[in-house]
Amino acid sequence: MTQLVRVHNVTVSSDGYAAGEGQRLERPFGSVDPMDLMGWAVGTASWPGRSEPGGSRGIDDHLVREFHRDIGAEIMGRNKFSPHRGPWADEEWQGWWGDDPPFHTPVFVMTHHPRPSFTLGDTTFHFVAGEPASVVAQALEAADGKDVRLGGGADTVRQFLNAGLVDTLHVAVAPIAIGGGSRLWTSPDDLLDRYHRDVVPSPSGVVHHLFWRD
Amino acid sequence: MTQLVRVHNVTVSSDGYAAGEGQRLERPFGSVDPMDLMGWAVGTASWPGRSEPGGSRGIDDHLVREFHRDIGAEIMGRNKFSPHRGPWADEEWQGWWGDDPPFHTPVFVMTHHPRPSFTLGDTTFHFVAGEPASVVAQALEAADGKDVRLGGGADTVRQFLNAGLVDTLHVAVAPIAIGGGSRLWTSPDDLLDRYHRDVVPSPSGVVHHLFWRD
Repeated sequence: MTQLVRVHNVTVSSDGYAAGEGQRLERPFGSVDPMDLMGWAVGTASWPGRSEPGGSRGIDDHLVREFHRDIGAEIMGRNKFSPHRGPWADEEWQGWWGDDPPFHTPVFVMTHHPRPSFTLGDTTFHFVAGEPASVVAQALEAADGKDVRLGGGADTVRQFLNAGLVDTLHVAVAPIAIGGGSRLWTSPDDLLDRYHRDVVPSPSGVVHHLFWRD
Repeated sequence: MTQLVRVHNVTVSSDGYAAGEGQRLERPFGSVDPMDLMGWAVGTASWPGRSEPGGSRGIDDHLVREFHRDIGAEIMGRNKFSPHRGPWADEEWQGWWGDDPPFHTPVFVMTHHPRPSFTLGDTTFHFVAGEPASVVAQALEAADGKDVRLGGGADTVRQFLNAGLVDTLHVAVAPIAIGGGSRLWTSPDDLLDRYHRDVVPSPSGVVHHLFWRD
């Protein structure tokens, strides 16, 4: 069975930024209000950890559910896992997601700073160094026949795109400009030399870009 | 790994018919012009067997591609396979699809009239009798870990829905009324007692209904 490396739900501004400058503990998206980027997803009925009934249905909800479909492992950059930089001053930090992270699979955090694996709920975090290709190989093996999600952030996705390791991408473009920070691309058209694309506008205001290759 | 039974690309009229009356060799959709129902799919860039470059991108194209994703076998009713009724007068008939049918997996044709299996391209057709549950069991085994597509027609889909055997459905509702023939439902809301739903309108004029259950 063919296993894919898939990007889901990454949201960027109209000028291509997935986070503003100044990411820190209180501001995981830096200068940007997270709801300006992720509101389309957080507002859906299928958003994990949704605390109240209701929520929107439609294309946004459909794509939020695709995040989990047939995924057996996630790869993420260290900056998605933590606001800290450099060696681990404090191994107490276990991610932004509380006691039950929404991954429910092994998660491979890319970092040059080793740390023991740990488990929260049914998510186990591993800390791995090395080239993207070797991290993909580890994640594909852990995924046990299912696909691997590449979780971001933008720098990590770009690194894997440059290495030719991404099979499909879902990127939502939100109708705000940020002007600086962590950038995925200058334009969604940047990938058209390597990918096919379907573009699906949503009533919520974001435009979904779905990329795949032969 | 959980295997699903999935319905894809079934298209019905605004009054719920998937084909008009009088299905025969020259009119596989009976009284209805097939393009009035299936034009949204046939017009996409990803439509299998497309003879010319071009074609539409967007939600229609995305859903046409979902037809193939992670599918390891198809189940279809005898009326989807053939315009003939009753015992096989002529085993020369090998389906509507020419030398390279667009399935590329084992296909289980439900019929009370036995016939030897045969292979065209990389699609093998098997002819099976029995209850839907036993046909699903055979198809799941043949699918080798992947999902099973329930291909239709409408009567077959209804039979499997009534038996509780369908996990997800994609049904496109086209903006024409037919008034009689092979009916899937009286309204897309008929399934809301058993399924969640996302509704996604397409610029092509059809409205996609995506159903799943817990």
